[in-house]
Amino acid sequence: MIGESPHPAVGLDDVIHQRVRLGVLVMLAEIPECAFSTLRDELRLTDGNLNRHVQVLADAGLVTVNKGYAANRPRTWLKLTPAGRRALRAELLALEQLTARLKSAGLDDPAT
Amino acid sequence: MIGESPHPAVGLDDVIHQRVRLGVLVMLAEIPECAFSTLRDELRLTDGNLNRHVQVLADAGLVTVNKGYAANRPRTWLKLTPAGRRALRAELLALEQLTARLKSAGLDDPAT
Repeated sequence: MIGESPHPAVGLDDVIHQRVRLGVLVMLAEIPECAFSTLRDELRLTDGNLNRHVQVLADAGLVTVNKGYAANRPRTWLKLTPAGRRALRAELLALEQLTARLKSAGLDDPAT
Repeated sequence: MIGESPHPAVGLDDVIHQRVRLGVLVMLAEIPECAFSTLRDELRLTDGNLNRHVQVLADAGLVTVNKGYAANRPRTWLKLTPAGRRALRAELLALEQLTARLKSAGLDDPAT
């Protein structure tokens, strides 16, 4: 179990792996152009908390933020960039390696 | 895709999900009693960084820390508590839901 290749946790990127940001990125993978308010409500966040994390993702070039109007009300939409999609794919691979190791260790068996 | 049940990211716990701590917990699931130095080397951490995260895990009751000697040198071992094992099992379930959603969204296909 200890070998030459690095542990899958070594490859995790804090920008993407962080709980709230990972939730945002997973939702943007599912909803190509998603309203800020939808993300906020689905992920049970406040405007301020979501805003802070969106800023980190935008600064890293992983999402784009577009402001506009819907039914005469200002609205913000988010979208995954190609770099965001690549980063999320790398996170998916790392998470699959981690879950595989946890299952090998018997963690999916409630009796252990 | 938007429904009554909360998004799987909502259930993630920062104490367990954080990159370094998740790496520690996964290794402790694999190696029941693991030396501090093994964790540090496998996870490519400094003593100080690992120490900080071990403290968070110990304060949360997820790991126990035992100090002793091996070959006349002081040594520290870490062990998952039953609560740590339960918390890690909950994280495993959440990660499996997240990876399943990413795969449904086509994220495992490099062509997308």
